[in-house]
Amino acid sequence: MSTRTSVDFIDADRVSVTDRGFTYGDGLFETLRVAGGRVPLWPRHEARLREGCARLRIPLPDMDAILAEVGRLSRDLADGAARVTLSRGEGMRGYAPPASPRPTLVVTVAPLALQAPPYDDGMAIRLCDTRLASQPLLAGMKHLNRLEQVLARAEWNDPAVGEGLMLDMEGNVVCATAANLFAVFAGQMVTPPVDSCGVAGVARAEILAVRDVAQARMNPARLLEADEVFLTSAVRGILPVRVFATRSWQPGPVTRALQAHWRDIGLPLPTGSKESDR
Amino acid sequence: MSTRTSVDFIDADRVSVTDRGFTYGDGLFETLRVAGGRVPLWPRHEARLREGCARLRIPLPDMDAILAEVGRLSRDLADGAARVTLSRGEGMRGYAPPASPRPTLVVTVAPLALQAPPYDDGMAIRLCDTRLASQPLLAGMKHLNRLEQVLARAEWNDPAVGEGLMLDMEGNVVCATAANLFAVFAGQMVTPPVDSCGVAGVARAEILAVRDVAQARMNPARLLEADEVFLTSAVRGILPVRVFATRSWQPGPVTRALQAHWRDIGLPLPTGSKESDR
Repeated sequence: MSTRTSVDFIDADRVSVTDRGFTYGDGLFETLRVAGGRVPLWPRHEARLREGCARLRIPLPDMDAILAEVGRLSRDLADGAARVTLSRGEGMRGYAPPASPRPTLVVTVAPLALQAPPYDDGMAIRLCDTRLASQPLLAGMKHLNRLEQVLARAEWNDPAVGEGLMLDMEGNVVCATAANLFAVFAGQMVTPPVDSCGVAGVARAEILAVRDVAQARMNPARLLEADEVFLTSAVRGILPVRVFATRSWQPGPVTRALQAHWRDIGLPLPTGSKESDR
Repeated sequence: MSTRTSVDFIDADRVSVTDRGFTYGDGLFETLRVAGGRVPLWPRHEARLREGCARLRIPLPDMDAILAEVGRLSRDLADGAARVTLSRGEGMRGYAPPASPRPTLVVTVAPLALQAPPYDDGMAIRLCDTRLASQPLLAGMKHLNRLEQVLARAEWNDPAVGEGLMLDMEGNVVCATAANLFAVFAGQMVTPPVDSCGVAGVARAEILAVRDVAQARMNPARLLEADEVFLTSAVRGILPVRVFATRSWQPGPVTRALQAHWRDIGLPLPTGSKESDR
């Protein structure tokens, strides 16, 4: 199958040019993995979407209906990636939100076929020149204002480079363009805080819930001292970092254990014979 | 007439849900005034759009065709406001821009009926709590990532308050939610720089071209010491500020002269008998 899309629960693939998602990026989205007809991380997607709606004052949609719609569009699909976009809906000219907004919900589902090499061996990542502005009012949310990520991702097109790290204006590593970052120092997992910029990823939230993780700022030099480095994404799961700048790593035991955890919660990753628990 | 809209030069009012304007706010826009079939500030809109395309690496559209399209949609319209939106076009999942993007152009025109009171007497403005993040890579552009303005404009709904000033993270006044800011101190016009945040407005550019203006940062306390304060907008023109915080003003001679200049370039404002050059 190819991509399936609905707008406000009706099979369709277009929105109004007056939709505030299009005119101002006024909305939120979630990208989620549908494995074997299930969305194991759904409660965390739902929680983030609820929080985003509260912060942007977008009326809360029917969350159960959204999950059902994802299920409807991913029927017969072994593995898929879904995008749920919730904008504030159509509006008149001007930034003032409508008094009674009617949010627009777009759900898109496409087949997903994760490839083994990055999971087995890790991937090479780079450092982006594009930095993240500090804006606590928007930090953590997966909102539709993503020009910083677009500019950062446009910095390279070498397919051998899987992701790019982004710094904040103070020079601390925050995340990758479309994934969160974890490092392990002497057995202690560390991930940067996302209270000034960056997205509070759903995979990141899962790890924070099941492991002891410190949230601490670190610069690239400190990252190079880590015993393990990996990236996390709701769709792509746990991605070991093999090369960054002057340093290379082999996927380590903490990374392998989290890949196994991903399989245990119903999100198998295409690792070969290298899993720690084989 | 009501609103007229075209998408890629064809009468239509919907865009694909995969349009990167909708998915990431990946694009630019211009809001312009069409008076008597003409767009007097078009060269400045065109210059800003060209610069935005270069900075975001969006292929340059046919500028003459855009102006012609604005003209086509505003036929028979005495006074109108047009919005020109240029997104990077449709895309696949992921932030990476398509190798060969085909930008989407949306033009919308609606009748405009400016009301006299704010031009005659000035308007009351407030200070917003929502601040502007510092991001030099995006500063000055009129891009589609406008959540900060949406949050700021959502702070009030008292129709007696016409605009809200926004500060940068250091506490300097940058602009209003949808207008630039000018102040006059002992005959010297001052406007805040827009190199860290804010939009380089087209009306602002017109004034910088025809008057001696200093670009300097100022905090709200300094603004209260001004002899005149006014806001500028390509659509709304020159708007005197009557009240801000503890201070009130009468529209002054610099403001009145710029309102007259607006009329002289073909953008009449509905001032009554109070213009300085009557």
